[in-house]
Amino acid sequence: MNVSQQIDTRPAASEQNMADAIRFLAMDAVQKANSGHPGMPMGMADAVTVLFNRFIKIDPSLPDWPDRDRFVLSAGHGSMLLYSIHHLIGFAYMPMVELSAFRQLGSKTAGHPEYGHALGVETTTGPLGQGIATAVGMAIAEQMMAARFGSSLCNHFTYVVAGDGCLQEGISHEAIDLAGHLKLRKLVVLWDDNQISIDGSTELSTSMDQLARFRAAGWDAQAVDGHDPEAVAKALERARRTRKPSLIACRTRIGKGAASMEGSHKTHGAALGDREIAATREKLGWPHPPFFVPPEIKSAWERVAVRGRMAREAWEIRLDASRSKKRYEQTAGRQLDGEVTHLLTKFRAAHRKRATKVATRQASQMALEVINGATALTVGGSADLTGSNLTMTSQTQHISPGNFKGRYLHYGIREHGMAAAMNGIALHGGFIPYGGTFLVFSDYARGAMRLSAVMGLPVIYVLTHDSIGLGEDGPTHQPIEHLAMLRATPNLNVFRPADIIETAECWEIALGEKRTPSVLALSRQALPMLRQTDGDENLSALGAYVLKEARGPRDITLLATGSEVEIAIAAAQRLQAENGIEAAVVSMPCWEKFEAQDAPYQKQVLGDAPRIAIEAAGRLGWDRWMGPDGIFVGMIGFGASAPAGDLYRHFGITADHIVAEALKLSAGGPGRSRSGAPGPIRSRANTSSDHLKEA
Amino acid sequence: MNVSQQIDTRPAASEQNMADAIRFLAMDAVQKANSGHPGMPMGMADAVTVLFNRFIKIDPSLPDWPDRDRFVLSAGHGSMLLYSIHHLIGFAYMPMVELSAFRQLGSKTAGHPEYGHALGVETTTGPLGQGIATAVGMAIAEQMMAARFGSSLCNHFTYVVAGDGCLQEGISHEAIDLAGHLKLRKLVVLWDDNQISIDGSTELSTSMDQLARFRAAGWDAQAVDGHDPEAVAKALERARRTRKPSLIACRTRIGKGAASMEGSHKTHGAALGDREIAATREKLGWPHPPFFVPPEIKSAWERVAVRGRMAREAWEIRLDASRSKKRYEQTAGRQLDGEVTHLLTKFRAAHRKRATKVATRQASQMALEVINGATALTVGGSADLTGSNLTMTSQTQHISPGNFKGRYLHYGIREHGMAAAMNGIALHGGFIPYGGTFLVFSDYARGAMRLSAVMGLPVIYVLTHDSIGLGEDGPTHQPIEHLAMLRATPNLNVFRPADIIETAECWEIALGEKRTPSVLALSRQALPMLRQTDGDENLSALGAYVLKEARGPRDITLLATGSEVEIAIAAAQRLQAENGIEAAVVSMPCWEKFEAQDAPYQKQVLGDAPRIAIEAAGRLGWDRWMGPDGIFVGMIGFGASAPAGDLYRHFGITADHIVAEALKLSAGGPGRSRSGAPGPIRSRANTSSDHLKEA
Repeated sequence: MNVSQQIDTRPAASEQNMADAIRFLAMDAVQKANSGHPGMPMGMADAVTVLFNRFIKIDPSLPDWPDRDRFVLSAGHGSMLLYSIHHLIGFAYMPMVELSAFRQLGSKTAGHPEYGHALGVETTTGPLGQGIATAVGMAIAEQMMAARFGSSLCNHFTYVVAGDGCLQEGISHEAIDLAGHLKLRKLVVLWDDNQISIDGSTELSTSMDQLARFRAAGWDAQAVDGHDPEAVAKALERARRTRKPSLIACRTRIGKGAASMEGSHKTHGAALGDREIAATREKLGWPHPPFFVPPEIKSAWERVAVRGRMAREAWEIRLDASRSKKRYEQTAGRQLDGEVTHLLTKFRAAHRKRATKVATRQASQMALEVINGATALTVGGSADLTGSNLTMTSQTQHISPGNFKGRYLHYGIREHGMAAAMNGIALHGGFIPYGGTFLVFSDYARGAMRLSAVMGLPVIYVLTHDSIGLGEDGPTHQPIEHLAMLRATPNLNVFRPADIIETAECWEIALGEKRTPSVLALSRQALPMLRQTDGDENLSALGAYVLKEARGPRDITLLATGSEVEIAIAAAQRLQAENGIEAAVVSMPCWEKFEAQDAPYQKQVLGDAPRIAIEAAGRLGWDRWMGPDGIFVGMIGFGASAPAGDLYRHFGITADHIVAEALKLSAGGPGRSRSGAPGPIRSRANTSSDHLKEA
Repeated sequence: MNVSQQIDTRPAASEQNMADAIRFLAMDAVQKANSGHPGMPMGMADAVTVLFNRFIKIDPSLPDWPDRDRFVLSAGHGSMLLYSIHHLIGFAYMPMVELSAFRQLGSKTAGHPEYGHALGVETTTGPLGQGIATAVGMAIAEQMMAARFGSSLCNHFTYVVAGDGCLQEGISHEAIDLAGHLKLRKLVVLWDDNQISIDGSTELSTSMDQLARFRAAGWDAQAVDGHDPEAVAKALERARRTRKPSLIACRTRIGKGAASMEGSHKTHGAALGDREIAATREKLGWPHPPFFVPPEIKSAWERVAVRGRMAREAWEIRLDASRSKKRYEQTAGRQLDGEVTHLLTKFRAAHRKRATKVATRQASQMALEVINGATALTVGGSADLTGSNLTMTSQTQHISPGNFKGRYLHYGIREHGMAAAMNGIALHGGFIPYGGTFLVFSDYARGAMRLSAVMGLPVIYVLTHDSIGLGEDGPTHQPIEHLAMLRATPNLNVFRPADIIETAECWEIALGEKRTPSVLALSRQALPMLRQTDGDENLSALGAYVLKEARGPRDITLLATGSEVEIAIAAAQRLQAENGIEAAVVSMPCWEKFEAQDAPYQKQVLGDAPRIAIEAAGRLGWDRWMGPDGIFVGMIGFGASAPAGDLYRHFGITADHIVAEALKLSAGGPGRSRSGAPGPIRSRANTSSDHLKEA
């Protein structure tokens, strides 16, 4: 089933001509934009031409054909390499006019390749190391699909072009260790070994023997002259045969071909200049004007598309003949069975009846038990905190080297690699990945989490131990700024459910998102069930809602999330019983969803009474909800090491403290007595709401 | 000068007894707390006993003696290993009562070792991989001090105990690559090779050949039986002699000694239980009650302190005899010459006269030129973006393998490793580290940046390309949520200066901080000088100030930071000229400093008029300053790839947009005409201020 063996793909125009076409498109586009990176496309043009011309299997007429080879430009700054090839092989979205609008507003040719912005871009790259780590996820997904549907329906390679930056970044270590361990034999990395980084020679900062390093991680590793097509081809043949992931170190010269600047780090990130480009045209015998490729060279490139289309058509015949066709299409299309929602709704009803009191991390596991039983699309995992994140269920056998039938990944102590791999799994298609670590260690995964949001991938982060409530592990393990950090990130749902009911609701919302990743911030400590009212409506989908309304006009509104909602309820009860102050309690499991509600609903929930916001985290962001006269009860510095209850008391995140603050707020008028009959504060009571009950 | 060779340190009590003392203290403390990690202290007790008993040079009576060996417990969860040893060798701060209060509020024995919380803890660890990467910075600082003052004043080792987690984390790759490259021969890592992580056997997640991996990075690497004291000693001897950094893989059994649970991952993170501990007492022949160590074993341990004290006293004699004594003490004490402040003030005055228009990253370099000329304490660097971050000056020769006379580090494409190394340099003493990358790539460094803040280290992050103003590189390179993320972090100054004057002011403040790290968020694009008024006062130290007051009562207040202050000024001028609306402009270079001002000053700056906040970043956090009726002009999603000017227009961060919003705000009353005579808005004008001028 190797299409490349059936057809003589060697074209009339030489591979040298084909590579030079890339070189000039890259030089000219960067020059026109006066911005960009010509050095890498020029240096890797020869090797990548061989890869595309002789091996790669993609069909420009159907860029999302599931069994295409994946090509990941991890060194994303060399985006003109990708755009040039996409133009040359005939992607409809990439006409020459786009190349000439490189890096301009509205063009498809963004500075770095952006998934979803231009068809055919497999993943967003630019932040170094992300491409190679994402590719590991793609290669995992490929093996998982092959394990489920056989090699006649899933049998493709994941090729990566990585630079020195990608291999210096820490995430590369996590990625190659995991890939080597899992024996991802269809992952092939071409390293642009040009011995140059931005500051100058790589000798300034590294002495790494990369071949030895990759071999230590269980990879096959070869070194070739990256400008020798036959050597590159031979290495690729071996890489495709070996049972391990493969590194091919391509020794290249950055800016290869440039008249006087070849080999210089000055070709890395700036236009070469008209004079240098003219001299390079002279040197390489390329008389053509900018943004013009001679027809015979274009034809040679278009044979790549012909080979890809034939492979895709042959695959479609196999799919049509397969008994697994329907199941395959459901999986590849990531179609979630409506059954999941139905079962989660039943789950909520059952636990509402039982008033189940569990940590929300445990509630999450209970919900996952339902979810994983109802769909085979979910793929779980944890960065070595399985027993703490509670991400494993009875259905999730773990994936091990060479055995991809399971659906749980022991990602190892590799939060960043996990997040990037989940991006790759989601990009590949076929699965919905979720993975766990402690909320505080989202720090380690930030680079890849941001890309989940930039790309709009349905990745779910299960981030447990979400506050000082984790207790004794102390300030290094207690998140303070992390909710703000995640809430500040565009296109990311940050859920912090208060009990088992909200946890199930948040899981349901997260699973329903097609273009937004989700964070579930979950407690270590047990939390009582708080949702007293019946009804199947998913209230968390509103982002915030009145969990407990005042009896009559509100004197005060308490806003809280997660584990602090319980404390707010206790404070409200005491305010009423001991002080005659009527407090409503608003649970806010998802700010992003609440922001999306209309103004009347927001006003109704927040009310007109003074507000106290309670969250065992930093204040940043809360002022929007609590208003200028609001009071924040939460953390102002880092945490401490002690049992959770001691910490809540130590930091004043208690019903006592809330009551005291509420009394201060309500002591606004001189006539106000602490014993609590309605005083001046009442004059600001909520008048907006049909949720009010008579006092 | 090897003290250990001069004295027979072999004690009456055996090293086995000494190690068992650690084991029981760890078991008993974790049991009493019912929380913690006994497995690692028990597994590594033998090897670490050899290290302390035969080699390490510390003096408990002077824990911060500059030439002490550094001992870094990178596997910080094994904190009882460290606390036990500190007790046993006689640190005054670590009496037995502290061990028995392990993980309790207020005790010195926090869940993970915390720098500054208990004397003798060299760095805060717990987040895995941080210790080993921080140790690289310590070893760099040691070599730099030795290059400046000779080996008679600086000659110590940095020892690290790391676990599988530390070596799986990506940051370890950045650290060992840098250490190998720089040939940090006095860095010795003991790897607790127990083949266990939290999820179970390390076979679940890794197949890495660690020895080969470290050798590939230029390290010396040895493997020994971690329970064989002579083998460990021999390996340590070799490690101390070799010209490379050293890894010693200590094959151990987690929970070594435990009656039935030795070797099980169940000993990793939970108390063993009274029954198991009793059985272990039986098995190991340890009849003593909890928290009791027999005098002969305690005496044996205390010989470590005697050796350390003698070494320290010998060193003091050498220091007293040294001609470099004064310079050494100034350096070790990190005493900044007052000259720096004086020169920076002159710098500001000069550029105020010249109205210098430069990017704030360039202003930063110009300020650094002054700073680095006035003090030798600063050590610069960049994560391979030297020419973009502009962190190098004429004084900063770079450090290269074996040559530590310079004061600039090419950290490579290793943001996380750089941040951790800077923590280590700051912890070691002797230098003030600053290092650069793009603001967006603070994502990669988060784990270590958080520890800068947790530990309160004077580390300075030069984060350039701080908004969509970087232009064509597109959304992967354009920070949106990063200012919020950093502002949310406790004990971190986030500076975003608006021009060359504020940039110099912010540098001055950052250099003056002793216990707070700083971020300088700097523009790629040129910014005009905005500070028109004369005077040497450092206005940025107020956090926010009125840069341009209204002529008469304010109709509106514009709040902005960094590159958007220029836009706010333009809008204010147009509002006045075209609409007769009086706008004040407030520059807010540092929220943290503004929060620290008293309420009257805050009120005076913010005023009573409606406010518009302008920042080319996300809104989160701004509501606090702009109030409930304020308007935010900034980013609501990710950026795009285009020239900077196009992006500002595309996203509406323009004077036009601000003017339009201001007109909406000021159109509150029906009588208000757009042509702009004072209307209803005037009724809310600022009445608080002595900064007002007559219209």
